[in-house]
Amino acid sequence: MIKVVIIGSGSVAQHLIVAFRNAQKQENTVDLIQVFSRKKEKLWHLIDSTKVINEYDELLDADLYIIAVSDNSILEVTENLTFKNRLVVHTSGSFPIDELNDSNRRGVFYPLQTFSKNRGVDFRLVPICLESENATDYQILNRVAKSISNSVFAINSNQRKALHVAAVFVNNFTNYLYQIGNEICEQHQVPFEILKPLITETAQKIMVLSPLEAQTGPAKRCDSVTIESHEAFLKDENHLEIYKILTQAIQDNGKKL
Amino acid sequence: MIKVVIIGSGSVAQHLIVAFRNAQKQENTVDLIQVFSRKKEKLWHLIDSTKVINEYDELLDADLYIIAVSDNSILEVTENLTFKNRLVVHTSGSFPIDELNDSNRRGVFYPLQTFSKNRGVDFRLVPICLESENATDYQILNRVAKSISNSVFAINSNQRKALHVAAVFVNNFTNYLYQIGNEICEQHQVPFEILKPLITETAQKIMVLSPLEAQTGPAKRCDSVTIESHEAFLKDENHLEIYKILTQAIQDNGKKL
Ligand SMILES: NC(=O)c1ccc[n+]([C@@H]2O[C@H](COP(=O)([O-])OP(=O)(O)OC[C@H]3O[C@@H](n4cnc5c(N)ncnc54)[C@H](OP(=O)(O)O)[C@@H]3O)[C@@H](O)[C@H]2O)c1
Ligand SMILES: NC(=O)c1ccc[n+]([C@@H]2O[C@H](COP(=O)([O-])OP(=O)(O)OC[C@H]3O[C@@H](n4cnc5c(N)ncnc54)[C@H](OP(=O)(O)O)[C@@H]3O)[C@@H](O)[C@H]2O)c1
Repeated sequence: MIKVVIIGSGSVAQHLIVAFRNAQKQENTVDLIQVFSRKKEKLWHLIDSTKVINEYDELLDADLYIIAVSDNSILEVTENLTFKNRLVVHTSGSFPIDELNDSNRRGVFYPLQTFSKNRGVDFRLVPICLESENATDYQILNRVAKSISNSVFAINSNQRKALHVAAVFVNNFTNYLYQIGNEICEQHQVPFEILKPLITETAQKIMVLSPLEAQTGPAKRCDSVTIESHEAFLKDENHLEIYKILTQAIQDNGKKL
Repeated sequence: MIKVVIIGSGSVAQHLIVAFRNAQKQENTVDLIQVFSRKKEKLWHLIDSTKVINEYDELLDADLYIIAVSDNSILEVTENLTFKNRLVVHTSGSFPIDELNDSNRRGVFYPLQTFSKNRGVDFRLVPICLESENATDYQILNRVAKSISNSVFAINSNQRKALHVAAVFVNNFTNYLYQIGNEICEQHQVPFEILKPLITETAQKIMVLSPLEAQTGPAKRCDSVTIESHEAFLKDENHLEIYKILTQAIQDNGKKL
């Protein structure tokens, strides 16, 4: 059994605890022996309270320490660790591996998904991006990751950064386009609900078609009559600017084909 | 039974034929008596070939004619109709009701979804936006729409235009953000597959949270360190420009709260 400790009690830490708990019911690869949380009671609904600690010197000997704290606290946490030469990884999409304190063997265990505290996630579908400094550590990370997910990838820090930037486009920016859709609906007293099946289908299409194949609409068709009428319709300067830039980009993209 | 004729044989026409066929198995509200297709054989896999015609003077007497042809042919089709004072609607998100030929009673039957010929759609989940010039016609449209969908709305031409513009943001522009995500992955040799669960979750979150509540990421957090590092990372001018504009918009939006 691989002994694992989680440090942190936020969204990612909580989803990892649940994922390891579920995995332990199925197979005996990983044993989650301890979780560090500044506020111990935060995790009592998820794990046996005797396993939750809030002092660094209480940390047990383990094969893997997963630090799932806010990006700007990762370094501080690694500096608080009193032991040396153990395998210590973080869960961040943007923190480079070589900025971790080097008293321990370093690695990354990045689950590429957007987690919220109140939403369940099927962790078996969450891609986990792994990085380590040596092959033996990679084997440990790989076994731990595969115990909770069907989708495990070796990703170096530069690739992880690319994924993190790409995730901003497909998640944060996409959500902001939903926000604009919502604003346009509110301005004209139509329920945003009407757009929801379209939002679902747009995301589902991409599971089977490439985005290039899935692209439709007035910009793709270079339908200048519709584009001009939409531009005349948009009274919000911000909506109009974004409409113009994305329309132009789709048209330029079409020309590249 | 309400007698319906469809004019057109593209994506929307074909999905409507299937939807009416399914509805007729359940209840006897609507009878699809005829379909007009310039190329008759295009529809033989979907409907009894005796019901498919390609001459306007073969059109039977019906309670409702649904014109599902390309936007720039709608007017031409209405002008080809030899009868008068019957209920004639189109399926377009952007064509105004009063630009239809006025020899017949006019209306709109706009299914707000993105249809592709090779993808099945559960029509019961497709919102249908209805408009008519009088209340009696609205009752007919409403009964026909409800026979195939659980989601039927009275939407005037101005609201329909708002929905169409909003649909461009949540569908066409969102798909283009997927395209950028894909390009960033390709440039750094990571599989776009890794982002797909995130794309799914981003769309699903919006079913239960407002876009404002669902917004996360460096722009929302005003995390200037991450934003600057992403901007330095993006070598493609077009990606960078879109990154900057959407980041700024999300930050400005946060300030409005
Ligand atoms: N959320 C996501 O969607 C997501 C996805 C992939 C990766 N990640 C990454 O996963 C990591 C954790 O993110 P999260 O979303 O779980 O964050 P979160 O929900 O905001 O939770 C942050 C956690 O960090 C702890 N913490 C902060 N400063 C600390 C310190 N100095 N010492 C000890 N603990 C400290 C907090 O403890 P208190 O509760 O005591 O304040 C809290 O448990 C980050 O690196 C993030 O980039 C997040
Ligand atoms: N696709 C969508 O996602 C969607 C969603 C909502 C609403 N709509 C609206 O639904 C309508 C149809 O769109 P679509 O996607 O089904 O289009 P489509 O797949 O491109 O098919 C267009 C159809 O129009 C026919 N047509 C074109 N010019 C014609 C003419 N002069 N006379 C007779 N038939 C003519 C074509 O016949 P041939 O096969 O003989 O060329 C074809 O059957 C449009 O108003 C569109 O805005 C589309």
